Amino acid sequence: MPERAIGVFDSGVGGLTVLKELRRQVPYELLIYLGDTARVPYGTKSPQTVLRYAHEAARFLLAKRVKLMVVACNTASAVAVHELAERHQIPVIGVIEPGAKRALQVSRNRRIGVIGTEGTIRSGAYERALQNHSANVSVYSAACPLLVPLAEEGWTTHAVARLVAEEYLAPLLEKRIDTLVLGCTHYPLLKDTLQSVVGPEITLVDSAEETAKEVRLCLDKNHLLLQSKGHDSASYFVTDLSDRFKRVGSDFLGEELQGVTTVNLD
Amino acid sequence: MPERAIGVFDSGVGGLTVLKELRRQVPYELLIYLGDTARVPYGTKSPQTVLRYAHEAARFLLAKRVKLMVVACNTASAVAVHELAERHQIPVIGVIEPGAKRALQVSRNRRIGVIGTEGTIRSGAYERALQNHSANVSVYSAACPLLVPLAEEGWTTHAVARLVAEEYLAPLLEKRIDTLVLGCTHYPLLKDTLQSVVGPEITLVDSAEETAKEVRLCLDKNHLLLQSKGHDSASYFVTDLSDRFKRVGSDFLGEELQGVTTVNLD
Repeated sequence: MPERAIGVFDSGVGGLTVLKELRRQVPYELLIYLGDTARVPYGTKSPQTVLRYAHEAARFLLAKRVKLMVVACNTASAVAVHELAERHQIPVIGVIEPGAKRALQVSRNRRIGVIGTEGTIRSGAYERALQNHSANVSVYSAACPLLVPLAEEGWTTHAVARLVAEEYLAPLLEKRIDTLVLGCTHYPLLKDTLQSVVGPEITLVDSAEETAKEVRLCLDKNHLLLQSKGHDSASYFVTDLSDRFKRVGSDFLGEELQGVTTVNLD
Repeated sequence: MPERAIGVFDSGVGGLTVLKELRRQVPYELLIYLGDTARVPYGTKSPQTVLRYAHEAARFLLAKRVKLMVVACNTASAVAVHELAERHQIPVIGVIEPGAKRALQVSRNRRIGVIGTEGTIRSGAYERALQNHSANVSVYSAACPLLVPLAEEGWTTHAVARLVAEEYLAPLLEKRIDTLVLGCTHYPLLKDTLQSVVGPEITLVDSAEETAKEVRLCLDKNHLLLQSKGHDSASYFVTDLSDRFKRVGSDFLGEELQGVTTVNLD
């Protein structure tokens, strides 16, 4: 059983930030990445449709006999992690819970900001996760639909990115937050711009790192962690293989994406 | 046969600009609109995937026994109009050919700019359409991936829209174009900003109007045009019905979207 792979699922390329962190924190694991690039983005779509897509992705990964599933997309985590965990026999880890826990560790004034896609913010999943762990916390959130296309366009430090971030973040800054959760796997690419807009006093929380930590703990607890290198790292599956995916994916992964296979989920 | 509907297909809401124009130019026709909102956008996806989606949409509309099909999406028009026209017995009209013809009518210096999604621009469909009609024309094109999310976010006259448009259009302005084709059905919403960036000397071509004109001519030629009102105007089908679709769709249509049915194409 430990020699089975970890399945990582995202709507597109964003989850590669989580995959990159997994390779660092659980270096001996075989990773299978599935990006639903033919139907990306999920953030603007209804919960029903995102849930259907998540079930289709899970079916694909389970057919690959993965031992653990990571939902590396905030929108899908918000609507589908509980359903997937109930339905299937393997552990399912989303990106929201680890990000929320981290935010509570770093915040001193208990005023936490959350930014994400429309779908993630509308779901209220971060508010629930934060308030489940601590009654004494105020959560302020903002949907930032333009940040994903900006990150994908590579305009991460462009004047436009700064202007957009200023507009979206102004209401959160007024609330005197001291911690800002990047509730979308695309946002770490905009970290420098976001940090410069909010100033050095506000801590940014990137859930990729926390999620990988959670995966490590979970594998360890279930005696599923591989202790030595058995095979080659990662294989990639996408539902649409465009030049854009190869280009943007390589940016996200920090190295050239190789060995990508196209599959059909629907 | 004339009493059958016209099928209008788009990746999402953008095609509603074409539907609106059809209601003006062929007011007695029954219109069936299909927006593939569960998989929008098409502009960033590969030609193979867009072609597959177009075939699925066509199958849906043909099951509704439409007498003519309008591909009201530039990206889908670029990759699928010829295949659909060859495969099916009814007329299939895309948005590229009518826009290209209009551009040639209005341009005096024969230097024409085209803006669109990555998929449309990469396909070279406008260049081919323009050069098929006139050997003596220079075409300069630019992919503008951020304009669709800006239009959908409603930031159509925002400083960000202006800054983005200036950046994308600068290389075209250097080429001294006198005509700019809005090669994406979302762009008419940004018309004021685009016109102010390019200045009053450059004519913007919006293909919605030209496409509706082409539909009218085609129906007339084939004795399919309805001459009097038989039934109620339009019905709407989408693959994902989100609050966003209702809000943005009403902006595009210029009136409240009503009677929308959700369907599954895949």
